[in-house]
Amino acid sequence: MSRHLDMNILVINSGSSSLKYQLFKMPEKNPVCSGLAERIGIEGSFIKHTVYIRNEKYSIEETGFISNHSEALKQVLALLTQGDYAVIASPDDIAAVGHRVVHGGERFSGPTIITDEVKHQIKRLFSLAPLHNPVNYKCIEVAEQTFVRAKQIAVFDTAFHQTIPEQAYRYAIPEWYYKEYSIRVYGFHGTSHKYVSEQAINWLDKKDSKIISIHLGNGCSITAIKNGRSIDTSMGFGPLSGLMMGTRSGDIDPSVIFHLMEHSGYTLEQLSTLVNKQSGLLGVGGSSDMRDIRKMVNEGDAAAALAIKLYAYRIRKFIGAYAAVLNGIDAIIFTAGVGENDSNMREAVCSELSYLGIELDLARNTGYKGELKEINTADSKVKILVIPTNEEYEIAHQCFGLLT
Amino acid sequence: MSRHLDMNILVINSGSSSLKYQLFKMPEKNPVCSGLAERIGIEGSFIKHTVYIRNEKYSIEETGFISNHSEALKQVLALLTQGDYAVIASPDDIAAVGHRVVHGGERFSGPTIITDEVKHQIKRLFSLAPLHNPVNYKCIEVAEQTFVRAKQIAVFDTAFHQTIPEQAYRYAIPEWYYKEYSIRVYGFHGTSHKYVSEQAINWLDKKDSKIISIHLGNGCSITAIKNGRSIDTSMGFGPLSGLMMGTRSGDIDPSVIFHLMEHSGYTLEQLSTLVNKQSGLLGVGGSSDMRDIRKMVNEGDAAAALAIKLYAYRIRKFIGAYAAVLNGIDAIIFTAGVGENDSNMREAVCSELSYLGIELDLARNTGYKGELKEINTADSKVKILVIPTNEEYEIAHQCFGLLT
Ligand SMILES: Nc1ncnc2c1ncn2[C@@H]1O[C@H](COP(=O)(O)OP(=O)(O)O)[C@@H](O)[C@H]1O
Ligand SMILES: Nc1ncnc2c1ncn2[C@@H]1O[C@H](COP(=O)(O)OP(=O)(O)O)[C@@H](O)[C@H]1O
Repeated sequence: MSRHLDMNILVINSGSSSLKYQLFKMPEKNPVCSGLAERIGIEGSFIKHTVYIRNEKYSIEETGFISNHSEALKQVLALLTQGDYAVIASPDDIAAVGHRVVHGGERFSGPTIITDEVKHQIKRLFSLAPLHNPVNYKCIEVAEQTFVRAKQIAVFDTAFHQTIPEQAYRYAIPEWYYKEYSIRVYGFHGTSHKYVSEQAINWLDKKDSKIISIHLGNGCSITAIKNGRSIDTSMGFGPLSGLMMGTRSGDIDPSVIFHLMEHSGYTLEQLSTLVNKQSGLLGVGGSSDMRDIRKMVNEGDAAAALAIKLYAYRIRKFIGAYAAVLNGIDAIIFTAGVGENDSNMREAVCSELSYLGIELDLARNTGYKGELKEINTADSKVKILVIPTNEEYEIAHQCFGLLT
Repeated sequence: MSRHLDMNILVINSGSSSLKYQLFKMPEKNPVCSGLAERIGIEGSFIKHTVYIRNEKYSIEETGFISNHSEALKQVLALLTQGDYAVIASPDDIAAVGHRVVHGGERFSGPTIITDEVKHQIKRLFSLAPLHNPVNYKCIEVAEQTFVRAKQIAVFDTAFHQTIPEQAYRYAIPEWYYKEYSIRVYGFHGTSHKYVSEQAINWLDKKDSKIISIHLGNGCSITAIKNGRSIDTSMGFGPLSGLMMGTRSGDIDPSVIFHLMEHSGYTLEQLSTLVNKQSGLLGVGGSSDMRDIRKMVNEGDAAAALAIKLYAYRIRKFIGAYAAVLNGIDAIIFTAGVGENDSNMREAVCSELSYLGIELDLARNTGYKGELKEINTADSKVKILVIPTNEEYEIAHQCFGLLT
């Protein structure tokens, strides 16, 4: 098995005009280097590359127009192989490229070596994730050309949620829409929920734990996890439903859409933009960034205060709902930008849940240092954990698991 | 005060082609008579009138085209005043007509004597309840002409929910849509939730009870009640969201609407029909009537079994969510057609909620006789109550309260 050690795995997370990457020398948890190409195909493109050597980091920023993702990946390859901070000698040193693919539909429930058949399936799912799967697909093709000898592996955001049972994944509409249009709950952020819940299970040392994982980033979702498996999650067919997010409304009565279509003169596209891009913290409080919202609240801004109230209230409702689904809970996890850094939000969420035996330790709740931390009191019946998410490492880890 | 006794209050509940009524001699709880005009303005109109004398009841059915609600009410008046079973001598014997009005917006939080100003307000709310408020309005005008000396009183389905706090009634969309288009949670079935929760508070003999009231009729909704006040409810802007119902989907990711609009070729109106009229028990299980669904399940029908699973699962999630909102619960109430009659559904809902201390007594759960019944075990930490709802009596009761 020792030949598998020091396996270089490059993780790629592509957006419509961006490409993030991290290179891992598995099973080492810290990346060797990481970087980000932004504004691909747009004026002002740049690439920022950082190499980690022991406790130091060295960053290079390159500007100059990057016309497409293929160009971007070529530049990444150059940064990996050339100059003083080269980390590999040639593209052949990369054993696998792990691709974050947003939508795996019902077909993919784990990391998958990419074949023509798999590519075909990812393509078939374009309509379910029109903003993500096409660019993920594009980057797979680009990576196949750039890292010819590497295994290309897809890790899907939806995969972890494929264990959700029918009663939770079906909507109460005729089966025809499920069969014909694939309408069901898929859930997202699966890689993050899987990663943090596995950390929690280790920490609790209890395989059959009942866990609620709360991912609060720009997108927000919450998942009920039983015996390490997702059994319900707040994002549904798309990443819109459930919790209130940076710019998304979360749950909203569809009657609102019907009503506004009839009375406001908006098009359906404008309404989709409204609930996806102009709502949530931004729409209610004036900024999609929780740090700004906190500043505004401190300055006495009532709209920002309302945004925080709505945001916390919905999390509390979902904790309650998932406690019912799990028939009790062992632990709740806070993760991602807001979950890891906003101690006030954790306090607002955990207050008045004493009926579940949830007791936050106010002192432990502050001063989080970026590592798993238990922040409940000694008497709390439920563990409250802050766990830094690490989707890139989880992708590398799943690829490594598949290849060894 | 004795002059107020024996006050005749006629309660009217109008639908687009129907008119239901009950006459109460307040404060007597049993109606003197009740009836139903159906297929108003449609071929095959009929009116069925029943008079209750001691423990006997006498029914008359009249057929013959009823062209509109005004015609219908004239016939009702004739039935009330003429023949062997006349219950009043003239329209002037009616002290008040209590109208069920579906939508009271933010303006009405209790029973309201109808003035021109009130009528104007009800009219302004037409767009929020286009199927109901116009016909309710129409019947108010008809009743004003028919019962000239009676007080006309409106009792709103939304009124009980006006105590819901901002964090629960606001959607996470910009305030503009709240101010300009009145987009917020209103909630419905308020008269029923108020009625049964007051019965429960009396039964528990505890004013500051934490109660979850579950109304399962053709429409279904669930309400969190603290100190006798609604603090959250599952129906929202319209009566579509929340629980799965006879023909309505309940909660569904609005992305589904956007997706189907783009890919299915349906119009928005067709999609509204889909989620409002072709979904729920009907859409998933093949009938909107729970009795049919139960029959099909007994015959081994998988779709009907799935419908029941979805239906129960969502109730359980809402019980959990509202337990969080209330920070614990004293009692849950089952009411309306399914809630009162379907012991299997109550069992499915209450199972695996032991984390809340909910313990159903399986023997007591059966053999319900139409009166308030406690069906939990002696050890259960939460009371489980079956309470027959009685919206008509509650309307009469609120009118009576207003006039005495
Ligand atoms: N110290 C902090 N306090 C409050 N919120 C924070 C803090 N640091 C980051 N955030 C919030 O985290 C969110 C972004 O989370 P992140 O997990 O980085 O997002 P993404 O979903 O894009 O991965 C932003 O709303 C940001 O304001
Ligand atoms: N014995 C029963 N078992 C199961 N369901 C029942 C039973 N009796 C009535 N129901 C159901 O109750 C529902 C109607 O409830 P009801 O409260 O009368 O409706 P509405 O909302 O129109 O007032 C129907 O789905 C019906 O099948």
